[in-house]
Amino acid sequence: MEKVYVLGHKNPDTDSICSAIVYAHLKRELGMDAVPVRLGDVQNETAFALDKFGFEAPLFIEKASPEVKQVILVDHNEKQQSVEDIDEVQVIEVIDHHRIANFETADPLYFRAEPVGCTATILNKLFKENGVEIPPNIAGMMLSAIISDSLLFKSPTCTVQDIAAAKELEVLAGVNAQEYGLAMLKAGADLSDKSLEDLLTLDAKEFGMGEYKVEIAQVNAVDVNDVMSRQAELEDLIYRKIAEKELNLFFFVVTDILNNDSVALALGSQAEKAEKAFGVPFVNNVALLKGVVSRKKQVVPVLTEALSE
Amino acid sequence: MEKVYVLGHKNPDTDSICSAIVYAHLKRELGMDAVPVRLGDVQNETAFALDKFGFEAPLFIEKASPEVKQVILVDHNEKQQSVEDIDEVQVIEVIDHHRIANFETADPLYFRAEPVGCTATILNKLFKENGVEIPPNIAGMMLSAIISDSLLFKSPTCTVQDIAAAKELEVLAGVNAQEYGLAMLKAGADLSDKSLEDLLTLDAKEFGMGEYKVEIAQVNAVDVNDVMSRQAELEDLIYRKIAEKELNLFFFVVTDILNNDSVALALGSQAEKAEKAFGVPFVNNVALLKGVVSRKKQVVPVLTEALSE
Repeated sequence: MEKVYVLGHKNPDTDSICSAIVYAHLKRELGMDAVPVRLGDVQNETAFALDKFGFEAPLFIEKASPEVKQVILVDHNEKQQSVEDIDEVQVIEVIDHHRIANFETADPLYFRAEPVGCTATILNKLFKENGVEIPPNIAGMMLSAIISDSLLFKSPTCTVQDIAAAKELEVLAGVNAQEYGLAMLKAGADLSDKSLEDLLTLDAKEFGMGEYKVEIAQVNAVDVNDVMSRQAELEDLIYRKIAEKELNLFFFVVTDILNNDSVALALGSQAEKAEKAFGVPFVNNVALLKGVVSRKKQVVPVLTEALSE
Repeated sequence: MEKVYVLGHKNPDTDSICSAIVYAHLKRELGMDAVPVRLGDVQNETAFALDKFGFEAPLFIEKASPEVKQVILVDHNEKQQSVEDIDEVQVIEVIDHHRIANFETADPLYFRAEPVGCTATILNKLFKENGVEIPPNIAGMMLSAIISDSLLFKSPTCTVQDIAAAKELEVLAGVNAQEYGLAMLKAGADLSDKSLEDLLTLDAKEFGMGEYKVEIAQVNAVDVNDVMSRQAELEDLIYRKIAEKELNLFFFVVTDILNNDSVALALGSQAEKAEKAFGVPFVNNVALLKGVVSRKKQVVPVLTEALSE
């Protein structure tokens, strides 16, 4: 039987790591030699979840071939967010909850995207549809992913389906979602061991918007000022990235997990479009985005529209 | 409540028409004001199915706006196969069984593609997943679509899932799949009322392959020679299409529904690539493709590979 890698996106967040582990488990139960892998470092929040439910971090890979010929993507579909040699392997399945772009296949495949808050919410359905039982630690992985992506059910990306799935999963996992979730988010918002470079790369994603190349990095924090007090140094690092990657916009979002707002720093030739996109002035390149916590729902669509005009 | 159009691809085949009717029915049962529409003429085969199960042809449209702001795509996802003003409306769902290409959204959506032989096979699952009962005439529409796409279960695109769905649906529809299916396919292969222009357009689809623009038209026939005896006239018409649409290849496939082979006619600047793609000589632009009946599985992938090199 051919080995298949199950992988989330670059700069993996908790959903990308947990969903790879969970879906590989389901596919193995269904008879596939599926192995979860990751494309980057495990973050503090994710490490907390893995430790709680007794999992090791998945194997780190830079390339999928020649080890495997086929891969399954979870939590992403855009080529530039995936494994480097994605064009040299066959994508046989995608399970995702993001917009669809820069994705193309020669053959039909199983592609399941749903407008829910978390990949794990879809995976929870797939266990049921396939009649496979969910072990407690796998339930814990899915619950962790949903809590992470929904900021403990407070993000506008969170749907009734995510909440319903989390309610089922907390029973199966044997934890209290609120208590466990807050502890996990706080572990993730502890930035004390992070360099500024880390903050800009840990959860950074690149997007094509109109004719422009945009990178959006996000970090969660308990105190936003811990990060923003070092704006000048951050800008030096960001300008280097813009030059290196030929970006038209770098958009850095620091999200306050207790108040559910974000502070954004916009740099690059298209930075002024951010003002128009969000309808707020950026003073010294910075603006407070009230109620904005979701890159996917509250940042990517408005920037895409502003940059596509 | 906002009206939503449910639409299959241009030059609609039986799956595109039936799946639009069936999925609009399911979405109405689930509370959406969903209306099935079509982007082209109803073919003889489809008319036979509609008549048998007591449906009218869906509303013909050229554009979706301004009547609706949102659409659901069935049986296709590639932009150039969809409604003309697809960029001016929001695609809120896609149910499909083809390769994914030229599809992009600004927001997450419900996208369900599976590598099965027919859209209706996925729709049959969606009724169950949503706990909605399937009325006999809706079952008949799904059965017709599966028979059409699978050439009565003989195409290599036909999966065990399609056969299982058809078995369930023939009971619900109260017909014998083999008897009904052969009658339906013969109605579709009756070309006596068709002009040559019809043959080239009734089931024609355009594809981007590498840097090339390729159109592939297919007709089913009981006697392939009825069509190919008029090759010279066909070529005149095809060359006009190549010029008009700036095509690099026009690939015309006449499929023998009794013997399950096809004869192909290849014209255009990239026509010689077809020889390489299929590993057979094209004599006077024509070749017999033994055992080839499926555009999706046996034609598009090999041409895509040959033209992408």
